[in-house]
Amino acid sequence: MNLQRLRQEMQAEGLDAVVAVSPENTFYTTGAYIMTQKIIRDRLALAVFPANGEPVFIVCNIEESLARAESWIRDVRSYVEFKTSPITVLADALRELGLEGKRVGMELRYLSAHYFAELVKLMPTTEFPEAGRVFNRTRVIKDAKEIEQLRVANYATHKAIMDSFAVAKPGDTEAQLAAAITTRIIAAGATEPFLVVAAGERSRQAHPNAGAYPLEPGDMVRVDGGGIFNGYYSDVARTVGVADPAPHIVDTWKRLAEVQRAVIDACRIGTRVNELYFLCQAEFKKQGLESPVPHIGHSMGVELHEEPMINPYNETVLEENMVLNIEPVYFSEDRGYHIEDLVQVTPSGPVVLTRPSLDEPFFVIGK
Amino acid sequence: MNLQRLRQEMQAEGLDAVVAVSPENTFYTTGAYIMTQKIIRDRLALAVFPANGEPVFIVCNIEESLARAESWIRDVRSYVEFKTSPITVLADALRELGLEGKRVGMELRYLSAHYFAELVKLMPTTEFPEAGRVFNRTRVIKDAKEIEQLRVANYATHKAIMDSFAVAKPGDTEAQLAAAITTRIIAAGATEPFLVVAAGERSRQAHPNAGAYPLEPGDMVRVDGGGIFNGYYSDVARTVGVADPAPHIVDTWKRLAEVQRAVIDACRIGTRVNELYFLCQAEFKKQGLESPVPHIGHSMGVELHEEPMINPYNETVLEENMVLNIEPVYFSEDRGYHIEDLVQVTPSGPVVLTRPSLDEPFFVIGK
Repeated sequence: MNLQRLRQEMQAEGLDAVVAVSPENTFYTTGAYIMTQKIIRDRLALAVFPANGEPVFIVCNIEESLARAESWIRDVRSYVEFKTSPITVLADALRELGLEGKRVGMELRYLSAHYFAELVKLMPTTEFPEAGRVFNRTRVIKDAKEIEQLRVANYATHKAIMDSFAVAKPGDTEAQLAAAITTRIIAAGATEPFLVVAAGERSRQAHPNAGAYPLEPGDMVRVDGGGIFNGYYSDVARTVGVADPAPHIVDTWKRLAEVQRAVIDACRIGTRVNELYFLCQAEFKKQGLESPVPHIGHSMGVELHEEPMINPYNETVLEENMVLNIEPVYFSEDRGYHIEDLVQVTPSGPVVLTRPSLDEPFFVIGK
Repeated sequence: MNLQRLRQEMQAEGLDAVVAVSPENTFYTTGAYIMTQKIIRDRLALAVFPANGEPVFIVCNIEESLARAESWIRDVRSYVEFKTSPITVLADALRELGLEGKRVGMELRYLSAHYFAELVKLMPTTEFPEAGRVFNRTRVIKDAKEIEQLRVANYATHKAIMDSFAVAKPGDTEAQLAAAITTRIIAAGATEPFLVVAAGERSRQAHPNAGAYPLEPGDMVRVDGGGIFNGYYSDVARTVGVADPAPHIVDTWKRLAEVQRAVIDACRIGTRVNELYFLCQAEFKKQGLESPVPHIGHSMGVELHEEPMINPYNETVLEENMVLNIEPVYFSEDRGYHIEDLVQVTPSGPVVLTRPSLDEPFFVIGK
């Protein structure tokens, strides 16, 4: 974690401290991956970073040994679930750090209204402005280790998907294909896998749950998913044919691949993020495809969707070592097509991290 | 979903409506499983249940087709991400339902402080009390279909763990064992698997991330995890030896198994939940094991930890078709032991759902 950058962003927002509350920012800033933070949401893990002075890491006592083993932060404090609220321990720490009455940035997009009300009651003279931007801006530039981590994660996920396509057969169900891909993603080292496998008409839904629907010859299947590799996400989408797909399916895929290629080529230092969105819309039009989607991609790291989101409103200017998932999606009347790859912004142009080359032919299962 | 029970609980709290906000309550009440709700938290899915009248289901437009396909709710409305806030659509729906100025129960333990502030600003005369209890009380009694779902999920998870132990070898790493178990859990039909595999001294940490640590002969390994099967959780913990484990390891496990057996036997209609906690503490003492854990189990369903939590403060009285994970944990100076099984409360006493019988001998990998 780039503590210096975090402090600069804090200063830029006029904050005396920031508190990491969300699982992604707690992991990013402390180095400790506390898996229960996501599935037992009341069990908060919090990290306080004063503008000056040592940080404090607050966890449930059940997770204290993990926090001490994995984090670089030395001041680890704990609370006993059901007995003491984590907010009480937070308020005590903030007071001790001399932050009462000051401006303490909080993740108000994550912290629940319930816990926030408790905090405000305990510290009525302290300001708690939303501080998500401080973390977003710190995380937006990836260091070499993070880039390598993302490359490994996305490369392995792409391979897991393609290896599963290679042995799948027409007539297999969505659920079978999903299990095959997920098994390979996990064997490659992922935890928390997530996956959409949507065959035929079901591909029209964005994120259906893989079921007993078969891969029909002549049709197509759409796959979108990934997992977490050492704390960093992968996210890859592919659309493929099944045994002699209808010509219009192959044709639509080719057009979509052209759209993606054009947008990836524009991922260069100095480009504004919403320019990518508008370019994508123009390319869709050029290919005769309508696409009214609210975003066409996103950055990724310790979180699946992180800033910058590629939507019409985002004026962020691309810098070296930002990464972007470029994922044009096209919904026809009865099918949904999707291709997604991760791109690194470098001084010599965009570098695709997910696969060796964009020149992949349309894959057909059972061909 | 038992809509009648939801309405009764609503009435008992004097509410004119409740709004489901968390992924578990949205799934439970609408029947639609929206996987992105968990990993893209800003992308709210909300379900409004007025005391009288038809419910309204609000989702991101990306998920609209899924919501229409999977939910029994007919009034599905959508918002476009980044363009319109879901809270605006919610406020419009509440007004239309005549709920302005009324008491609308909200999940304040889930809804973020940011979104809540937005809602209060749009509807300053409407009361939004915390309504988590309405959902908890509706979910606490499982119907026959839910019990069967939980039985299948936990039985399959137990089998996945035991089958993986059967083929594991001393010298395998935590990560290898974790991949083997996770693969089997997924093959059995789970999504969102989660798993702790902690060998030797690492078992002292509650939830370490499985790594390159080997299963050492003479030592032990602790496993805790599960996944989501058709929306319902499994959660199973086992502690096993590795090739000729030290006698004190076997002895400690046997004592822990006795503690668990005694607590399971007490899971009967009419028992207070904190009596189970105190009984467990007494049994620990009887076995010469100290255990200062904040809870010794929990209910489970669409959420991993759901009410009743078995802690010293919970005075809930057990009723027929409540389910409880009974999971005594014992931390010695350098090892952590854990056994966890799911129990159904029935008129004829406790029924273990995770495995055919509690009479399982201590398992040893590589024996």
